Amino acid sequence: MEESAEHRHSGSGKMQLGLSVSDSDVSSFTPLVVLELADDTKAEAISWLLNRIRDKQQNGGAELLVNQLLFPAQDDQKSNPNVFVVGSTLQRLLNGAEDVGLFKEFQDGTMRGFTYANRESFKDFNGDGEGFLSDAECQYIIKHELDTLRAKNEEHVPGYPKLKLYPGKSVVRRLQSKGVLIQYFPLHNKEDLKRLSFSWYKKFKLSFQPLDDIRHYFGEGLALYFGFLEYFTFALVPMALIGIPYYLFDWEDYDKYVLFAVFNLVWSTVFLEVWKRCSATLAYGWGTLCRKKAFEEPRAGFHGALGLNPVTGREEPVYPSSKRQLRIYLVSVPFVLLCLYLSFYVMMVYFDMEFWAINTYHENPNIATSILLFVPSIIYAVVIEIMNLLYRYAAEFLTEWENHRLESSFQNHLVLKVLVFNFVNCFASLFYIAFVMQNMVLLRQSLATLLITSQILNQVMEAFLPYWLQRRRNKKVHKRMRRLMGDKELPLLGQVQLETEMNTYLGTFDDYLEQFLLFGYVSLFSCVYPLAAVLVVLNNITEVYSDAFKMCHVFKRPFSEPAANIGVWQLAFETMSLIAVVTNCALIGLSPQVKAYFPESDTQLILIVVAIEHVLLAFKFILAFVIPDVPKHIQVKLAKLEFDSLEALKKRRRTLGRKHWKIRRPEIRGISDG
Amino acid sequence: MEESAEHRHSGSGKMQLGLSVSDSDVSSFTPLVVLELADDTKAEAISWLLNRIRDKQQNGGAELLVNQLLFPAQDDQKSNPNVFVVGSTLQRLLNGAEDVGLFKEFQDGTMRGFTYANRESFKDFNGDGEGFLSDAECQYIIKHELDTLRAKNEEHVPGYPKLKLYPGKSVVRRLQSKGVLIQYFPLHNKEDLKRLSFSWYKKFKLSFQPLDDIRHYFGEGLALYFGFLEYFTFALVPMALIGIPYYLFDWEDYDKYVLFAVFNLVWSTVFLEVWKRCSATLAYGWGTLCRKKAFEEPRAGFHGALGLNPVTGREEPVYPSSKRQLRIYLVSVPFVLLCLYLSFYVMMVYFDMEFWAINTYHENPNIATSILLFVPSIIYAVVIEIMNLLYRYAAEFLTEWENHRLESSFQNHLVLKVLVFNFVNCFASLFYIAFVMQNMVLLRQSLATLLITSQILNQVMEAFLPYWLQRRRNKKVHKRMRRLMGDKELPLLGQVQLETEMNTYLGTFDDYLEQFLLFGYVSLFSCVYPLAAVLVVLNNITEVYSDAFKMCHVFKRPFSEPAANIGVWQLAFETMSLIAVVTNCALIGLSPQVKAYFPESDTQLILIVVAIEHVLLAFKFILAFVIPDVPKHIQVKLAKLEFDSLEALKKRRRTLGRKHWKIRRPEIRGISDG
Repeated sequence: MEESAEHRHSGSGKMQLGLSVSDSDVSSFTPLVVLELADDTKAEAISWLLNRIRDKQQNGGAELLVNQLLFPAQDDQKSNPNVFVVGSTLQRLLNGAEDVGLFKEFQDGTMRGFTYANRESFKDFNGDGEGFLSDAECQYIIKHELDTLRAKNEEHVPGYPKLKLYPGKSVVRRLQSKGVLIQYFPLHNKEDLKRLSFSWYKKFKLSFQPLDDIRHYFGEGLALYFGFLEYFTFALVPMALIGIPYYLFDWEDYDKYVLFAVFNLVWSTVFLEVWKRCSATLAYGWGTLCRKKAFEEPRAGFHGALGLNPVTGREEPVYPSSKRQLRIYLVSVPFVLLCLYLSFYVMMVYFDMEFWAINTYHENPNIATSILLFVPSIIYAVVIEIMNLLYRYAAEFLTEWENHRLESSFQNHLVLKVLVFNFVNCFASLFYIAFVMQNMVLLRQSLATLLITSQILNQVMEAFLPYWLQRRRNKKVHKRMRRLMGDKELPLLGQVQLETEMNTYLGTFDDYLEQFLLFGYVSLFSCVYPLAAVLVVLNNITEVYSDAFKMCHVFKRPFSEPAANIGVWQLAFETMSLIAVVTNCALIGLSPQVKAYFPESDTQLILIVVAIEHVLLAFKFILAFVIPDVPKHIQVKLAKLEFDSLEALKKRRRTLGRKHWKIRRPEIRGISDG
Repeated sequence: MEESAEHRHSGSGKMQLGLSVSDSDVSSFTPLVVLELADDTKAEAISWLLNRIRDKQQNGGAELLVNQLLFPAQDDQKSNPNVFVVGSTLQRLLNGAEDVGLFKEFQDGTMRGFTYANRESFKDFNGDGEGFLSDAECQYIIKHELDTLRAKNEEHVPGYPKLKLYPGKSVVRRLQSKGVLIQYFPLHNKEDLKRLSFSWYKKFKLSFQPLDDIRHYFGEGLALYFGFLEYFTFALVPMALIGIPYYLFDWEDYDKYVLFAVFNLVWSTVFLEVWKRCSATLAYGWGTLCRKKAFEEPRAGFHGALGLNPVTGREEPVYPSSKRQLRIYLVSVPFVLLCLYLSFYVMMVYFDMEFWAINTYHENPNIATSILLFVPSIIYAVVIEIMNLLYRYAAEFLTEWENHRLESSFQNHLVLKVLVFNFVNCFASLFYIAFVMQNMVLLRQSLATLLITSQILNQVMEAFLPYWLQRRRNKKVHKRMRRLMGDKELPLLGQVQLETEMNTYLGTFDDYLEQFLLFGYVSLFSCVYPLAAVLVVLNNITEVYSDAFKMCHVFKRPFSEPAANIGVWQLAFETMSLIAVVTNCALIGLSPQVKAYFPESDTQLILIVVAIEHVLLAFKFILAFVIPDVPKHIQVKLAKLEFDSLEALKKRRRTLGRKHWKIRRPEIRGISDG
């Protein structure tokens, strides 16, 4: 009786996922996560894994529900039979929520760490807690419990003597690193997805994105990206509005450009500082601001000789940091430098092409040759995108090879590599045109071509192409399913089959990178091409729709990633805005109108420009310092939380102390001092 | 029986403080802290205060031991009779150590928050814990307990209807703010002091300061100051060694100065970054690195209408932030600007004097007029010091008047005001000479005179003058004591009497400020006067001795202040080193030798100098980013601590969870999904 109660999930949760229970092969719980093992996995390994997943927590299991997805016998195509769906009892999920340190809204409106003991005091906790956790949270909890399912005394995975295990090693990561576990991903919830996609991008309206719903469905990391995208776009609107008349009326006066540039500098600083506050407000409301980071496990791909981890005291692979440093400085750094050199070489080829096109036009000016003027820039833009893409793969391979222990350190090294190269690759030619050739007309033309071409390429590459591929795949699966089952309704089977074949969303990295480069186009040379902001605003509006669409229909649902801020990207954007101060000041100094004010000596002009630049930089720092990163009302709430926990601790101590006092007092030595 | 055991302190603790117990008027506990009330304090207020201090913690008291210090009846001079000594039982101190969140060394060598329940697992805990806490820690605990002694339902201090109280108000702070409590301070421990001063400054030796002993006696804040002073001095040694030949051989080649300046820039960045690591190591060993900051009480002087604190939910005075902002921007800022203007005006007067002196010398060059050359600089240096001093008082008054709620915010505003003015006041003339007059000979002479004069003045003002005053006072007290008691030994009475009259040490502010200005002299114009480093090293060596002496014998013992780093001063030093990059690059650009490389155009020279400056600034930022603030081995220990506490929490939860599981399981709704 008790056993069966445990293995069932309550009815309403079932309805949420919109799955009919007529899939007779699947047991009666709501499937949340799909595990796909290689189709030649040995049976003993499978049964061992399933046992470990089902086993009680006291015995070191994950205490989750798992079942194999059985395909009808008449399946003629070789579907992978080793697909499993994982679910959980509500009780287990609530306990898991405490394990992962979820923050939820308390009765008094503050966000507090959820504890099972105090569950009744949380705001949306009704009855047995049905609907208290969002789907994304449930799936995140299951992922966490699977990831922290650790080997006990097994020396290797049963049936695979080469798949060594040691006590404390994450079983899932080991299976993953050796390709036995192909993938595991959360299932989409069709009902919720329909509702979300309707409010997100299906109705064309002038309103904000439903960030809370996005967070509810996809988790905080992705919601923060969309929040940032929206914020960035809105922040660009004033710049775009000011930029339009410059373009329309062909204002060539540099005094006006100077004004524009100064406005941009102040704007970009304030924009980034205010974003920190917005992001803190969002993250507080989502409970990730004060959430403690979980202890980080080694990456799945990390390898090394068994040694002792000085922190946990457990045996685990250890890889000497000196070896990694050698790999970084002797291989990765030279490789990056080589790529940078290559990028410069391509840039020089582009300039040769550009001069050839200009010469051809001057020799014989007609429509054909005037179109020809744009061809080198377009080709160069395409080549830049291709180089960025190739470099991205190489950087990932190299960073993987550097064998970082933690995912965070892997990410940092990858981001650094990619950022440096992308920055140089995209902007080197613009810098060269601006400061070496000092040709403002060419700069403007080149900037426009690069910006527009890369925007078009990006939209095609990241949304339409995958969508087209996905639709082809969808049709195939649907056809097969219909042939397989006739009119029988097997929605779960079909859904799992479909989603297994979908592309995996690789995280927000590329999306942020794109915004970073757009920010560079807008801010670095803003004073020579004010229309850039308009183009970026237009791009970002379509970007919201295409990104939303791709998240909902092109990719597998990603596991939610708790995030308190946009992380390293904040730093990247701030660095870019620092560089923008320097370039804009230099551009202004180069302008003939400004030069006209100092006819007799360049020296004085340069000194004044440098002085103004220093003042602006100092001003930026002071501004960044003066604007608090967290808004006042959130600060008060955080302080309240801390105060309450301190008070509670003190109370507990006092009670304990009194108890000890009573017990210990006779032991106090009564030595008279006199 | 129990009561008397509580009121006694064990014998060895007594011996530690070196007080004989023959002072029959003092009860038998080790006095640690002295409370001095105004001599006209009403008797009912005194007895109420003593009761509150003695009362049990359950009743909201401090549960400390306190006794009045009685003077012999034949006292002819009007000694203040309301002097009290406070002590505590060992038990109470250990509980207090938990309350204040003290970190102590655990058996496994890591630092952990002390809890009374786990006391036996801490490294130096033997027997009943005698000697486990240092004197400074005991006194800090007593201070904390006195500070957090809160009003219950009293509406005002008994006998003082105007001294309003409200539940939760710190009694001691209220009495202090109205002058009823004149002062409270920790007593010196003569034995320990003798030992400390011997190892610290009495033996002339080439060794490091006994930082651990200093911390043991004076607390972490002061020990960190001396650590920084020592570190700074040692870091200057290479610069001094390189500087000497420049001076001796009169190297005027600017190529060499360029080398020297570049060395300085790299040095100053690395020096500050490495200091962070040193300070983290020290603070970890002293248990302040991971110690949580206690919840900050309002300052004693803070006033306002009664309102509700949004964080604690308690009633307390509230002062609208808008009013404070008005005071800051409408009064303080204009006042600071006015002072800066005054400082510029004085500078101009100095330049007039300087030119007059130079003219006089040129008209009639002899010994008298050649000495006259130095007079204006010396007078200016003295005037600068006087202005700094006066401004300091004004800044303190203004910041007090701004009515900041927290001590930390008060300190920040004070530091900012003082730093800006001191920086301008001390360095404006040097900037003017260097970049407006471009007179390097005058710059060198002026720098030397300012530096030497201010060093001499400082040493006199902060150590020798107070020492001389203190000795006079000492003699008077000794004479009176001898007359009073004849040959009777009343060491405690005499000691309290003496220390009550000593000056109060006002914190490390002025000491850091002095080092900050010295750092400015060394780094800002280092390339024109390499001897500056030598002078600062010499100054700092005597500074260590005079500061040590003044701490041990001139001032009252200060309460220990837990500090994890040097706080806002780190930022101040880093800002100075940023400014130094700019000034040094500019100085190098101005030098005739460098100019000679670019005979035809100044423009190219300036551009190159600016480019180099930008590269150096970027390099500084990257360096600051790359060098981790906490050394690896400390990071590992911190991670271990966090991991252990997470594991413990998880274990506790799992046990609790199982309990709940058993209890809750029947409640899980067993709704079948089918």
